[in-house]
Amino acid sequence: MLQDLKNEVCEANRDLVRHGLVTLTWGNVSGFDRDKGLMVIKPSGVPYESLQPDDLVVLDLEGNIVEGSLKPSSDSPTHLVLYRSFNDIGGVVHTHSRHATMFCQACRELPCMGTTHADHFCGTVPVARALMEAEVTEDYELHTGNVIVERFSDLDAAAVPGVLVAHHAPFTWGPSVGKALENSVALEACAEIAIGALSLDPQAAQLPAHILAKHHLRKHGPDAYYGQ
Amino acid sequence: MLQDLKNEVCEANRDLVRHGLVTLTWGNVSGFDRDKGLMVIKPSGVPYESLQPDDLVVLDLEGNIVEGSLKPSSDSPTHLVLYRSFNDIGGVVHTHSRHATMFCQACRELPCMGTTHADHFCGTVPVARALMEAEVTEDYELHTGNVIVERFSDLDAAAVPGVLVAHHAPFTWGPSVGKALENSVALEACAEIAIGALSLDPQAAQLPAHILAKHHLRKHGPDAYYGQ
Amino acid sequence: MLQDLKNEVCEANRDLVRHGLVTLTWGNVSGFDRDKGLMVIKPSGVPYESLQPDDLVVLDLEGNIVEGSLKPSSDSPTHLVLYRSFNDIGGVVHTHSRHATMFCQACRELPCMGTTHADHFCGTVPVARALMEAEVTEDYELHTGNVIVERFSDLDAAAVPGVLVAHHAPFTWGPSVGKALENSVALEACAEIAIGALSLDPQAAQLPAHILAKHHLRKHGPDAYYGQ
Amino acid sequence: MLQDLKNEVCEANRDLVRHGLVTLTWGNVSGFDRDKGLMVIKPSGVPYESLQPDDLVVLDLEGNIVEGSLKPSSDSPTHLVLYRSFNDIGGVVHTHSRHATMFCQACRELPCMGTTHADHFCGTVPVARALMEAEVTEDYELHTGNVIVERFSDLDAAAVPGVLVAHHAPFTWGPSVGKALENSVALEACAEIAIGALSLDPQAAQLPAHILAKHHLRKHGPDAYYGQ
Repeated sequence: MLQDLKNEVCEANRDLVRHGLVTLTWGNVSGFDRDKGLMVIKPSGVPYESLQPDDLVVLDLEGNIVEGSLKPSSDSPTHLVLYRSFNDIGGVVHTHSRHATMFCQACRELPCMGTTHADHFCGTVPVARALMEAEVTEDYELHTGNVIVERFSDLDAAAVPGVLVAHHAPFTWGPSVGKALENSVALEACAEIAIGALSLDPQAAQLPAHILAKHHLRKHGPDAYYGQ
Repeated sequence: MLQDLKNEVCEANRDLVRHGLVTLTWGNVSGFDRDKGLMVIKPSGVPYESLQPDDLVVLDLEGNIVEGSLKPSSDSPTHLVLYRSFNDIGGVVHTHSRHATMFCQACRELPCMGTTHADHFCGTVPVARALMEAEVTEDYELHTGNVIVERFSDLDAAAVPGVLVAHHAPFTWGPSVGKALENSVALEACAEIAIGALSLDPQAAQLPAHILAKHHLRKHGPDAYYGQ
Repeated sequence: MLQDLKNEVCEANRDLVRHGLVTLTWGNVSGFDRDKGLMVIKPSGVPYESLQPDDLVVLDLEGNIVEGSLKPSSDSPTHLVLYRSFNDIGGVVHTHSRHATMFCQACRELPCMGTTHADHFCGTVPVARALMEAEVTEDYELHTGNVIVERFSDLDAAAVPGVLVAHHAPFTWGPSVGKALENSVALEACAEIAIGALSLDPQAAQLPAHILAKHHLRKHGPDAYYGQ
Repeated sequence: MLQDLKNEVCEANRDLVRHGLVTLTWGNVSGFDRDKGLMVIKPSGVPYESLQPDDLVVLDLEGNIVEGSLKPSSDSPTHLVLYRSFNDIGGVVHTHSRHATMFCQACRELPCMGTTHADHFCGTVPVARALMEAEVTEDYELHTGNVIVERFSDLDAAAVPGVLVAHHAPFTWGPSVGKALENSVALEACAEIAIGALSLDPQAAQLPAHILAKHHLRKHGPDAYYGQ
């Protein structure tokens, strides 16, 4: 079942390596079929190079295994919270990519300093708070998803498709698996560029609002025309 | 038509990947045939790996499509302004290469701190100002070209074949497509070296003027003899 | 003899290159068969690419060569001290990986700033002091091992399987050769991320203790379930 | 003539790419046959990938071309000064490797902060001063060699086989072509590590003298035994 989605999710997991976003097995990609209400996710601990579509695990929205003989990624409950809460998303990517994780470890949000950022994230990429002790004890991965959703209570997850979890690492999402992956690539690039720009000028200004709006709309608005 | 130029532009676009200058599809190369008044440019959104010479789009100086079935890069109006304004150039390269973009995002010009820089850029690589709201609304990509030309009103575009667009990314050019590409490679390297040098000494001095002149002339002057 | 261990140690030495942990021949991996009391280690000065299992040297715990025609790595006495002192380890990795070595050269311990670190090291990776003159004169490599063991006199080498030797470079270990290598990969990644995080915020906080405990236990505790 | 040396020099020039030390054609390697008094050097402007041993140019110590149909590297006069002045060297390498060049551009010497450095350079790698105007006018490349020799008037070129030319880039040398190349690789690595260590602690201490002496002697002294 869900063979196309499995192929897509498998390919995206393998692309994490190609894009230099993962070390060891620190990352995973999932895809979601909203009609069927089923998530396809990387199994736990399998190396990317040998991952095959049929290794993937299918879960329903409550986390029950519907198909697959391997253990799903231990981050599955986090992915499921995002699919339950963000209505239009079809893919989620989690990595510990180096520069985005630097911002996470510094518990510092990533401001929009340029058009590279604006093309993917319409404004600041926010930080989700660290989990409290009771949350860690009760269900660590579930509450990791919950603090992300909490952080987006007054933000638009479609306009800013990513988050920096404090002391942890980034998550991105998108309408499709491919777009979620693109957003992870973009987040890592923007984090690297921002660190350099801030080393040149710690008070560097953000992108003027009228340029932010333009860049986002020319790529994502109703009259989108952008393409390099 | 323009088969040689198409081959050259196709190869240069693919070389953006080989030189590590592009992420996703954030970059494009064009070439210009000054006799015919025609520009050859990358089509929009096509991955570099699969780009073929016949995918390229041919535009006249007013931006009319003369040949090609794909949509030209959305940055085409910017490239055309440069070909109309800088008389001797035959190639333009736009990337979001990491270190050059750090300077763009910090809105900081790149001083000439060493001979590596002097071999390609005879002095500071300047910053072109951010677009104002009316310019963004009217024609974003056209005015991006205009602010570059405005910045070079009292500079020599042949001696300093590149610019850092504020809050955006670099553009370079050259007498040929190959030289424009070389200048993008050099700009990225010089930006990286400058960031490191400035971290070692925020007041690091610029290259003495007599060495700047020597390095530029031995490579670009009438009696050029340079070659490592 | 010890053919499986030789294969494993050979592969791990070659993997140092694949993981970008070594320059020239600056690194070596050993494995230990605790039942037989024998160590298998890289021979001195052989390039990783051409290393074969039968090139490896077998030493007993006193450093006598039991098998092998090549000279063992000059770091062998350091490895042997670790196998004699840390009861449960089966592999040791020494590299001069760039970012971990930056911390060594700054004589600065690596604090646990995030979950990436907590998954591998349960708390701060400590610095072992520089050798004193008499120690250098007497037996440099032996005393390098001794200062590591001295540093761990009140630390748990199983919970924090790595060390930064002051003015020198890192060593990691683990229950197996593969785990020791994984810890070297993780140490380098965590050092790189920490340098970036500290550049963003020199006073960046450490990972809260309840999250540190959770991350370490979900991967290494009796009820371990972790796997991305 | 000199076929073995040509093979060695050709291979070392190509290895500049493999070690990530060069961008475009910014670097060159030469070798010297002290018995014959002849230097073999890279021709000017030839890409490394297509370089063949018979492309190399043979010069005598006065710079006369003895063999070869291509133009020798424009840096040839600098190399020749070094062979004339440093009696025991058999190879010279010039690159604009990123991190070593950062130190050159900041006109800052590279202190010995760790054993990685001590294994190759017995103490600080010094900065040679920028050329004065009359020197640039008279013979730029010759005087580049002269300021290096001037800087080593009270230093031992065998113990510290490299230099940072102010506002320019590094040169290294060694008893053989291979050793000169190794020193370039080590200089770049040490420069990168030092920049990171200095960002962690701008007042980071240098390697204690007794460890510096030990590391250098165990590798280069009469009783050398070192090998990882």
